Amino acid sequence: MRLLKVDTLNEARAKLLKASSGKIPQTERVPFIQSMGRVLAENVKSNENIPGFRKSTVDGYAVRSADTQGVTESIPVFLDVIEEVAIGSAPSKTLNPGQAVYVPTGGMLPEGADAMVMIEYCEKFDETGIAVYDSVSPGRNVISEGEDISRDQIILRRGSIIRPQEVGVLSSAGITEPEVYKPWKITVISTGDELVGAYDTPEKGQIRDINTYSVMASAMKHGFEIVETKVIKDDEKLIEEAIREAMETSDMVVASGGSSQGEKDYTADVMDRLSGGGVFTHGIALKPGKPTILGYDNRTETVMIGLPGHPAAALMVFELTAVWLYRQLTGQPEPKTAIAEITENVAAAGGKTTCLLVELKEQESSDGAKNSNLCKAYPILGKSGLMTTLTRADGYTMIDVNDEGLKEGRQIKVILF
Amino acid sequence: MRLLKVDTLNEARAKLLKASSGKIPQTERVPFIQSMGRVLAENVKSNENIPGFRKSTVDGYAVRSADTQGVTESIPVFLDVIEEVAIGSAPSKTLNPGQAVYVPTGGMLPEGADAMVMIEYCEKFDETGIAVYDSVSPGRNVISEGEDISRDQIILRRGSIIRPQEVGVLSSAGITEPEVYKPWKITVISTGDELVGAYDTPEKGQIRDINTYSVMASAMKHGFEIVETKVIKDDEKLIEEAIREAMETSDMVVASGGSSQGEKDYTADVMDRLSGGGVFTHGIALKPGKPTILGYDNRTETVMIGLPGHPAAALMVFELTAVWLYRQLTGQPEPKTAIAEITENVAAAGGKTTCLLVELKEQESSDGAKNSNLCKAYPILGKSGLMTTLTRADGYTMIDVNDEGLKEGRQIKVILF
Repeated sequence: MRLLKVDTLNEARAKLLKASSGKIPQTERVPFIQSMGRVLAENVKSNENIPGFRKSTVDGYAVRSADTQGVTESIPVFLDVIEEVAIGSAPSKTLNPGQAVYVPTGGMLPEGADAMVMIEYCEKFDETGIAVYDSVSPGRNVISEGEDISRDQIILRRGSIIRPQEVGVLSSAGITEPEVYKPWKITVISTGDELVGAYDTPEKGQIRDINTYSVMASAMKHGFEIVETKVIKDDEKLIEEAIREAMETSDMVVASGGSSQGEKDYTADVMDRLSGGGVFTHGIALKPGKPTILGYDNRTETVMIGLPGHPAAALMVFELTAVWLYRQLTGQPEPKTAIAEITENVAAAGGKTTCLLVELKEQESSDGAKNSNLCKAYPILGKSGLMTTLTRADGYTMIDVNDEGLKEGRQIKVILF
Repeated sequence: MRLLKVDTLNEARAKLLKASSGKIPQTERVPFIQSMGRVLAENVKSNENIPGFRKSTVDGYAVRSADTQGVTESIPVFLDVIEEVAIGSAPSKTLNPGQAVYVPTGGMLPEGADAMVMIEYCEKFDETGIAVYDSVSPGRNVISEGEDISRDQIILRRGSIIRPQEVGVLSSAGITEPEVYKPWKITVISTGDELVGAYDTPEKGQIRDINTYSVMASAMKHGFEIVETKVIKDDEKLIEEAIREAMETSDMVVASGGSSQGEKDYTADVMDRLSGGGVFTHGIALKPGKPTILGYDNRTETVMIGLPGHPAAALMVFELTAVWLYRQLTGQPEPKTAIAEITENVAAAGGKTTCLLVELKEQESSDGAKNSNLCKAYPILGKSGLMTTLTRADGYTMIDVNDEGLKEGRQIKVILF
């Protein structure tokens, strides 16, 4: 057994970022309709003012606000309607004192008008006149030109993930081909003599491969592109061949299984040998997830990660290292967390950062209005290797290495799955 | 202007659910690898015990726990090693008193053994013997057969969304073709003389279409399948033709624009005419989102929704009605919410449910350990029609119709986007 110095999670991440800092993900332009879920690679500026005209927010009459000074429900002002603007069209006339123009919601105000009176406060009065029963100040019920988005305004920032509302903003500003980051290509390898594929029937002593599929699914969820997945026996030659091949085709090679200090830890040796820089992390002070290997090869620009064999640990460590790294290099903010109260005392693993799975449930409290909604976090404690602990979880919370543990009732940050 | 009775959000939802309760989404079987993001249409049971054998969680020796009674660091017990089990293989011998078998992490225990001693507590002693320095109780370091998943255990429930961890559980139980709900087919129509496409340059008075794209993107995000999107002028014949066609091909027809009580509200009339049941909701007491139309056609089994024209309202009402309905019919739980403290007083819209957009920021408090993490919710208040309010938002909170408003400091439930 070799002596291994274990890194803290922060140390391991710092090394990972430093080693791969030259590996900026490539970018590409995609039609905005297909950009959902992609990460913006540039700050997006508007080329124009939105709206490109003064727009009414109500159905009503465009007026000179000065004409309505002193008007009340009992003392109206009488204005002459000179035009009815259709939605989508520009007015043809300028508004002079004493005049009004009908403008529908979303319609364009004529020159000379500076406010809108809602139709509910107006009454038709002979052929072309209206009586107006409300006084309005300048700008009332009007969106100015450029008030939503002004020319050259940064409307979306690099690192933002495009959601439906961002698709809407891109379309409103006519940004039809935003620049986004290309997904990283990833090869996922599972090693283990005990593994059979999901479609096979295991013999006594064998289990179906889980990690290939769950890590692959997590990679897809976070925007990676799967090059290949492989299940390999615990044979050093086969593992070396698989990893070497993957380094040529992939930005990231993830291998799970074979990284504990057991009789078979070829993954660590192979990764160390094949990566120009060598493996720089042999184990992370993380529960679960101690037997984690991190390395980087400069020649092929490949990030190399050896995940623990235990399925729950493999998935969480993948998120805490691989997904974390891609987020850093693409300028993405940390994912939002939920705040919840832990429902029981939880001891921390001494000397390690603990990654605690929790299930969230809402509860009404009897406190009345101020604390009417509480979110409770139920720790999920299970033996290593139980996949079902992960499906009950809504997310996880990190217990700092220096923390003694969590006391019941403490408010914790929960990173949601 | 016709007199319209406005429904509360709950009333509208109840009517929507009742009208469409016969429209259970169809299902299909998909390869589990492709099932990410899909909604399970059945409770998934395991056909077998997982693990299918008694499994060690450590590298060490399988023993009879009784043999280790009274053992301490200074008083070991000497056992005879009769076999070394390889990972993935079944042991060939039964363990008798005084014997031990080497088993790696994940390996199978032999008959006769009932516990594992970690290798760190054992020392090799002549050719075949070991000295054991730890006493273990039955079951120590062992996962029993079926302890993770037992035969016939429900491992996933109908209505669950398949995430990476569910992909892992499906693969571990050999469930290679889970039954999932087929996405609903949706046609999205935007109406408005003022609209031009995202690729066009607007003239004065015109704006680029937003709602078609943002609603389409939201539909895709929530698992709908887009049949078609259309932008149509405010012409009753054209609108009727488009909606009638869509009813034949789609489970849901969503039209935005043209549903306010302005001069042009053809959408409401058309939907009323074409739907067998008629439109049952003409407006929801919801801010924003009042001019919302809901209807259902029994003949074509089509849900019909008229969204407000304002982009922020259109997106939110789509989530609160269409997405909500699909969730109900597929048994999905309500989305998780975050709890946050509102940072300022917000007045409620009298007589309406208010849907308030918020931006979430985390803050450390100076309270010390008990309240060390607070999540603050900053209300986003903007004029109707501003798309940029939506991109700043992390989610929204619902202020109940009977609530006077929110006081600064109150903890609110935030539905995350």
